[in-house]
Amino acid sequence: MIDWSMPAHERAALVTGVGRSPDSEGDVQEALARALWSILVEPGDGDAGLLLGAVGAIEAARLLLEEPVPRRLVEATQGEVADTRAKAAIARWLPRRRHDDLVRALRSAQRVGATLVVPGDLDWPASLDDLGPHAPVALWVRGDPALLRRDGIAVVGARAATGYGEHVAMELAAGLVQRDLAVVSGGAYGIDGMAHRAALASSGDTVAVLAGGVDRFYPTGHDGLLTRIAQQGAVVAEAPCGTAPTRWRFLERNRVIAALAGATVVVEAGRRSGALSTARAALKLGRPVGVVPGPVTSAASAGCHAFLREQHAECVTSAAEAAALLPSTRAAVLEELDAVEVGAGSSHWDPDGLRTRVLDALRPRREQSVDELARAVGESAARIRSALGALALDDRAEARDRGWVRRAAPVG
Amino acid sequence: MIDWSMPAHERAALVTGVGRSPDSEGDVQEALARALWSILVEPGDGDAGLLLGAVGAIEAARLLLEEPVPRRLVEATQGEVADTRAKAAIARWLPRRRHDDLVRALRSAQRVGATLVVPGDLDWPASLDDLGPHAPVALWVRGDPALLRRDGIAVVGARAATGYGEHVAMELAAGLVQRDLAVVSGGAYGIDGMAHRAALASSGDTVAVLAGGVDRFYPTGHDGLLTRIAQQGAVVAEAPCGTAPTRWRFLERNRVIAALAGATVVVEAGRRSGALSTARAALKLGRPVGVVPGPVTSAASAGCHAFLREQHAECVTSAAEAAALLPSTRAAVLEELDAVEVGAGSSHWDPDGLRTRVLDALRPRREQSVDELARAVGESAARIRSALGALALDDRAEARDRGWVRRAAPVG
Repeated sequence: MIDWSMPAHERAALVTGVGRSPDSEGDVQEALARALWSILVEPGDGDAGLLLGAVGAIEAARLLLEEPVPRRLVEATQGEVADTRAKAAIARWLPRRRHDDLVRALRSAQRVGATLVVPGDLDWPASLDDLGPHAPVALWVRGDPALLRRDGIAVVGARAATGYGEHVAMELAAGLVQRDLAVVSGGAYGIDGMAHRAALASSGDTVAVLAGGVDRFYPTGHDGLLTRIAQQGAVVAEAPCGTAPTRWRFLERNRVIAALAGATVVVEAGRRSGALSTARAALKLGRPVGVVPGPVTSAASAGCHAFLREQHAECVTSAAEAAALLPSTRAAVLEELDAVEVGAGSSHWDPDGLRTRVLDALRPRREQSVDELARAVGESAARIRSALGALALDDRAEARDRGWVRRAAPVG
Repeated sequence: MIDWSMPAHERAALVTGVGRSPDSEGDVQEALARALWSILVEPGDGDAGLLLGAVGAIEAARLLLEEPVPRRLVEATQGEVADTRAKAAIARWLPRRRHDDLVRALRSAQRVGATLVVPGDLDWPASLDDLGPHAPVALWVRGDPALLRRDGIAVVGARAATGYGEHVAMELAAGLVQRDLAVVSGGAYGIDGMAHRAALASSGDTVAVLAGGVDRFYPTGHDGLLTRIAQQGAVVAEAPCGTAPTRWRFLERNRVIAALAGATVVVEAGRRSGALSTARAALKLGRPVGVVPGPVTSAASAGCHAFLREQHAECVTSAAEAAALLPSTRAAVLEELDAVEVGAGSSHWDPDGLRTRVLDALRPRREQSVDELARAVGESAARIRSALGALALDDRAEARDRGWVRRAAPVG
C-alpha cells in the first residue's frame, strides 16, 4: 500500500530529485501520481489512459489507493469502458500498489540523473498525444528532454543486421542529421545501434527509446553507446527505473518510437522482426513509413520486402528520400532530388522520338542523303530535314559535301 | 515502286515460303499487303494502324502504290486523323515503297524458316490488340508461333546486370516455367539472356522479341542462345527481315514484350534502363508490373527502386510473387504463399498479448506464485491463472510445488 500521506517536504524532495521544479503542491502531486501510474500499468494500457483522461492522474491514484477499492473508482473507470473491463483493469492494477516500489523508482531515477516528464510539461512531446489513451502516462529521460520535441525520423531494423544494412543505416542517419533531423531508434544491436552511432558521429541529435527502465541500459553491450546518447542526446523510457525489458515491453516500446518520430524507416528486417511492429504502429498513427529494400536473397531484407508488398509504405533508398517522408521537409527535399535528376542528363523535347531515330540512322563517317535517311527512318524528307537541323544545332549532326554524318556526343 | 501485278503463282510462292497456306487469292494478298506495311512503317506507327483498321491492309497498300498518290488515300487517312497529320504520314511511308525490299524481306524470311503471322491468323496473339492502332501490322516468327498465345510473364532487365541480378532472373524464370508460364524477354545480354537460358534449361517455353529482323540475331554474341530459342521456343519481330535494330526500334520493341506478356517483371535496371520503358508500356496497357528490389547501393537496381517509388508497381521477390501478378494464377499462387507463411510459424490467438507477457515473466527454474506473476505482468490474478492454463496446454508453462516455471519451446 502506498503511503500517500507522507510529509510534504519528503514528497517535494522526491519530485525535485527527478529534475522537476514544482511550483505548487498540485505540481508535486501530479508528478507523483504519474510516477505511480507508470509503475501500476504495463505500457500501452488504454484503460488507464481513459481513466486518467477522465478524472486526472491525482484523483485516479487517490481512488486506487483507498481500501477497499471505492465504488467511485469502478464507476469512473466504467464511465469510459464496459463494466467487466473496468473491473478487470482495476484487478490488474491493484497487485502493484506498493509504496516501496514508487520510492525506489524515483530514487533510482535520481541516482542516474533521469528527468520525469509528464503531460502538460513544456518538454512533453505533443506527438505522443496521437496515441490517445495508449500514450505513456509519463516518460523517464536521461539526457536532454527537449530533444523529444525535435523533428525526427525513426531509423529501425533488425538486430541481426548485415554489413549492407549497417552501411545503409549509417548513411541514412548521417544524411538525416545533415538535414537537421533527429534520429530516433531503439538502442538495440544492429541497425538501431548503427543509426545512433552515425547520428552521434555527425554531432546530430539522437533519441533512444528503451523497453525497460533508463537506470540499467539494455542491451548491456550497448552500455557505452547508450551512455554517450544520454550525454549528447536523450535516452527515454515509459517504464520506471527498475523495470526489466520484456518482449511485451519491446513491442509497446515500438509504438513510442513510431509516435515520437514524424516518420519511420525500416532498414533491414527479417519476416518476424520487431522493427516491422514499429512500422505498423507508425501506419496506425497515420505517420509515413519508408522501407529500405535489399537483395531478395537476403533473409535480413525479407520482412522489408513483405511490408513493401502488403502495406502502404514507400521504398526508400537514400537519406533524401527518407527526409522526404516528413510532410514538413518534403517540398524542399523533392526539389533537391529533382535537381539531381535534371543534372544527371536532361534532354531536349523530342515527343515522337524523331531526333532519336534520325540520330540512330546517321553514321559517323558514311555520308547519307536526306532521301536515304527518310527511307532508313521511315519519315518524310521534310521532317528529316527539320530533325537534322535541330541535331546540327546540338552539334550531334553535320552536313558534309555528299550528305549528313553523326558527330560524337558532347562530353559532360 | 512495288510491282503489285506480279503473276499469281509467284505471289503465292512468296507467301507459302513464309510458312503460310493461303486458301484464296485474298489470303495471299492480305499476307503480302501486311508484309509490305511492315516494311513501310516504323514500329508503333499509329497512323498506319488507323488506316489499316479503316480500309484494310490490301486496300491501303493498293492506294499507296498508285502514282500519283490518289486523293482517296489522303481521304481515307484523313478519315482517321487530322489533315496535316494524314499528309505527313503518307509522306513518310512513300520513300519506302520499293518492290525489291518486299521480295528481299520475304526471301530472307523464307531462308531462315521464319513464319509471317498476321491479324486474323489462329496464331495471332489477341494480347497485341490491346495496343490498338499501335499494334504491329504483322509478326515475323522463328520457332513455334503458337507460343505467342501462351500465358506468360516478361522478365526483363539491364544488360549491365550484376551477378545478383542474373541469379534472381534465373530463379524467377525457372520458377515461372515450373508454374507452366512462358518467359518473354528481349534476348539481350544480362537479365534477358539469363531469363531465356533458365527457361530453356527447365524445358520451358520462352519467347524472345527482337528490335531488328529475325534473319540476323542481335546481339551477335547471343547468336547461339537465340538459335536455341528459335528451336525450342520462338524468336519474334515486327520489323521485317533485313531490318537493323535501332534505339527507336528497341524502345518500340518493348511495348510488344509488354503486350505479349500478361505481366512484366523488371529484375535489375539502372536509372535509364530500357527495361523501365517495358514496365511503363505494361502499365499503360493496364498490365501488372513487378519490380525486384536490390541493394540500394547498387546502381543496377536504382531504376527498379525509382520505379517502385514513382509508379504503380509491386515489389516482387520470388517466382511465386511474380506468378501472382497474373490475374489468372493469382488465387492459386497466393494460396501457395499463404501455406508457406502459416507453416513458418503459426501461433495461437492472443489478441492482447497476455500469454506473451506471462511467458516473458516466467523463469525456467525459479518457481513463481500467481500473485508474483500478477505483479510482474501487471494483470489480475484471475487472468494470469487463465493464461497459465493456456500456456500449460501448449507445454510452455508448468505448475510445480511452489509455483509456475517456463518450459522450453517445443522443437519443430
